[in-house]
Amino acid sequence: MNKKHIYIYSPSSAVREKPAFRRGVAWLRAQGHEVEIDEAALSAHQRFAGDDATRIAAIARAAASGADVALASRGGYGLTRILDGIPYKAVAKAIDRGTAFVGMSDFTAFQLAVLARTGAATWSGPTLCGDFGAEAGIDEITAACFDDLVEGYGEGTGWRLPARDELPSFKPIRGATLWGGNLAVLCSLLGTPYFPQVDKGVLFLEDVGEHPYRIERMLEQLRLAGVLARQKAVVLGQFTGYRAAPHDRGFKLQTVVERLRSQIKAPVLTGLPFGHVPTKVLLPVGGTVDLAVEGKEAFVVWGHDVGGSRHAAPHDHHGHAH
Amino acid sequence: MNKKHIYIYSPSSAVREKPAFRRGVAWLRAQGHEVEIDEAALSAHQRFAGDDATRIAAIARAAASGADVALASRGGYGLTRILDGIPYKAVAKAIDRGTAFVGMSDFTAFQLAVLARTGAATWSGPTLCGDFGAEAGIDEITAACFDDLVEGYGEGTGWRLPARDELPSFKPIRGATLWGGNLAVLCSLLGTPYFPQVDKGVLFLEDVGEHPYRIERMLEQLRLAGVLARQKAVVLGQFTGYRAAPHDRGFKLQTVVERLRSQIKAPVLTGLPFGHVPTKVLLPVGGTVDLAVEGKEAFVVWGHDVGGSRHAAPHDHHGHAH
Repeated sequence: MNKKHIYIYSPSSAVREKPAFRRGVAWLRAQGHEVEIDEAALSAHQRFAGDDATRIAAIARAAASGADVALASRGGYGLTRILDGIPYKAVAKAIDRGTAFVGMSDFTAFQLAVLARTGAATWSGPTLCGDFGAEAGIDEITAACFDDLVEGYGEGTGWRLPARDELPSFKPIRGATLWGGNLAVLCSLLGTPYFPQVDKGVLFLEDVGEHPYRIERMLEQLRLAGVLARQKAVVLGQFTGYRAAPHDRGFKLQTVVERLRSQIKAPVLTGLPFGHVPTKVLLPVGGTVDLAVEGKEAFVVWGHDVGGSRHAAPHDHHGHAH
Repeated sequence: MNKKHIYIYSPSSAVREKPAFRRGVAWLRAQGHEVEIDEAALSAHQRFAGDDATRIAAIARAAASGADVALASRGGYGLTRILDGIPYKAVAKAIDRGTAFVGMSDFTAFQLAVLARTGAATWSGPTLCGDFGAEAGIDEITAACFDDLVEGYGEGTGWRLPARDELPSFKPIRGATLWGGNLAVLCSLLGTPYFPQVDKGVLFLEDVGEHPYRIERMLEQLRLAGVLARQKAVVLGQFTGYRAAPHDRGFKLQTVVERLRSQIKAPVLTGLPFGHVPTKVLLPVGGTVDLAVEGKEAFVVWGHDVGGSRHAAPHDHHGHAH
C-alpha cells in the first residue's frame, strides 16, 4: 500500500488515555504511514484539548499540513465553543487540495459547520484513540474502510438491513447530498448559521448514551423544524449506551423508529454500521451519493472526488460491513 | 382563603407514583380547594399518560373546565409529540377567562408553544405529584407562592443573589417579556414554529440531570442562534442532578456561567429559586415583568393581569424565596 501523510490533532476533549493515543499512532505507523502529531495534540485545559484559541490553531495547522488525512484524536465536547473561530476557508482549501478530514461524535459540529459555510465534504469515521488505539485493536472492517479512503479505492459502502426493517419497495436515490452524524450534536446546531440547509439529502444519524425518549425528542425537533420533510431518506446508524427505564413499559428504540416512519414520507433505513461502536464505515458528509436497496442489502455509493479523497480511482464499492 | 377550582390532568408522562398523586390531591382539598381530576389523569400508554390523542383531549378538557388553575400532574416527556395537535385557541381562550395553566419541566414545551402560537401566558411552577404530593410534604415557599397565585395576591418574587454573582451595577429592566423554563426542552424547540420569538425579553432557565458541558452546549446553541443577543437579561435557576466527571478538571457549572457572561452583553443573574428542587417560585411565561436588583436581592415583578391570574388585586410582591 501507499504510504500516506496522516496529521493527528485534537479539536475537542483532552486526550486522557495516553496509551490509546500511542497505540493508535503505532498502528498507523505500522501500516507504513507517516504520522505527524500536532504540537497541541496532548494539550489539556479543563476538559478540553487546550483552550479555545489552542484548538482553533490546531485546526488551522491541520488544514495547512498538506496531509492526506487530518485525523481527530477523539471526540468529547469542545467544537461547539469554537465554531465562530474555525478558519473555514483554509479548511475548504485543504479539502480541495486533497486532505480528508476524518472524525465523529463531537466532530459532527465541525463537519456540519464546514458544510454549511463552505459546501466542502469531510468524513465521518474513526478517531485515533477510539478506534486505531482501541485496547482490543482496531475493528477489521473499520480498518479496511479507512484503507479504502487512504488508498483512494473507497467509493461506497453497503450493509445488511435488519429483517424487520427491510424496505422491498425502496426506490433508488441518485445524486443526493449525504450528511448527518451525531444526532445530539446535529440538533445542537439547529437554528444557528452552522446548520447546513440540505434539500433532498440523505441524512444519517447515530448517538450514544441517549435514552430513546431523548432520541425521539431530537427527531421530533428535526421534523417540526421541517428538516426531515426535505430529505429523500433517513438512515439510522447505531444508538447505543443508554439504559432502559422500568417506566418505559414498551417504549423502546424500535418504537421510536416506527413512530418516525409514521410521521415522515421519506424512507427510514436502519442498521447502518456507524456510531459509537467498533465497526464503523466511513461516510462523506457533504458528498453526493446514490442510495439503493437490493434485497436485504442497502448501498451508499459516492463519486471518487469527494471530501479530500480525490486520489481515488474508479473501483467497485467494497461493502465491507455486510 | 377562597376555595378555588383546580383541574388536574396529565399531558406528559404517566403517573406511576399513585401515592404522590393522592397526597397531592388530598393536600389541595385540605386547603379547601375543589379538585377536579381529569378522566385520563391516571391513564398509561408506554411511558406516556395515555396515547397522543388521549393527552391532547385531556388538554382540551382542562381548557374547557373553567377551572381557576389547570395543574399538570407531572412532567417527564410527551408534549413534544403532540405540539401539532394542541387546541391552542381553546387554551388561549381559557387563559383569557382566568384559568392559570401551571407546570414545569416537559411542560415548558406546552408553555413555549402556547406563547409562540397565541401570545398567552402560562405559569412555570409546581406539579401535583412532584410538589403537592412530595413525600416530605410540599415546600413552604412553593406552597405560599401557589397561594399567591390562587388568591390573586402574587405580583412578583424576589431572591438573594449568590455572593459571587452579585450585580451591583444592574440597571432595572421594565416591561420585558418573561419566558423560559427547562433548558433542554426549550432548546428542543429551536428551529421549529413552537419556539417563541421574544425580543428584549427576560429569559429564565433551569435543568436537571444535564452535565455542565451539555448545559454549555445548549447555551451556545441559544447564543449562536441569536436568541441571547435579543434578551435584556438571562436568569439562571437551579441546575441539579448531574454527576461531575474526573475528566472535567475544573470545568464546572460556575465555569459555564462565567463563560456565558463573557459571551453575551445581557446581564446574567443566578440563584433563581426555580428548577427541579423543592423550593420553586411561580413565574409567568409570556408575562410582562420588571426586573431589578437592590443590594444582594433580585426582584421580578409582574402585572396583576397575566396568565389567568386576573383575579389579582394590587399587592406588594412577597419575595418569598429570600
